[in-house]
Amino acid sequence: MDDRQLAVLRRKLDALSYSEPLDPSSAPLVQKLVEDLVHTTDSYRVTKQQCLKQSQEMAAFDSRLEAVRQESVRL
Amino acid sequence: MDDRQLAVLRRKLDALSYSEPLDPSSAPLVQKLVEDLVHTTDSYRVTKQQCLKQSQEMAAFDSRLEAVRQESVRL
Repeated sequence: MDDRQLAVLRRKLDALSYSEPLDPSSAPLVQKLVEDLVHTTDSYRVTKQQCLKQSQEMAAFDSRLEAVRQESVRL
Repeated sequence: MDDRQLAVLRRKLDALSYSEPLDPSSAPLVQKLVEDLVHTTDSYRVTKQQCLKQSQEMAAFDSRLEAVRQESVRL
């Protein structure tokens, strides 16, 4: 890994609030860990969002169903 | 980080298929990244599982609803 790539990696770490020292010899390992962490975090956010949307759909459906049930009791 | 902690971290990296070299001076950074990666991966798995379970519940509900609809058309 050259100096430019190392500087980019250091900036990325700082942006993610990792302020611990990085030795150039460990840069390939750290690069890989950061990539995997960013990828996993993105996947987690997307899935959490989907999950929340599904919950809201189910809640809305339950409300409609309950309204229909109340109406059929009334009739 | 002492030698024992460093050896534990190295074994953990190997178990996660990270074979790149680790310099002792970068160990605290790597330790933190690995912890965060493991934590995020766990959260992702749990959320994905919840999401799948919800999807199955919704699909089962849709099937029941369709059966009721068909029945009410028949009557």
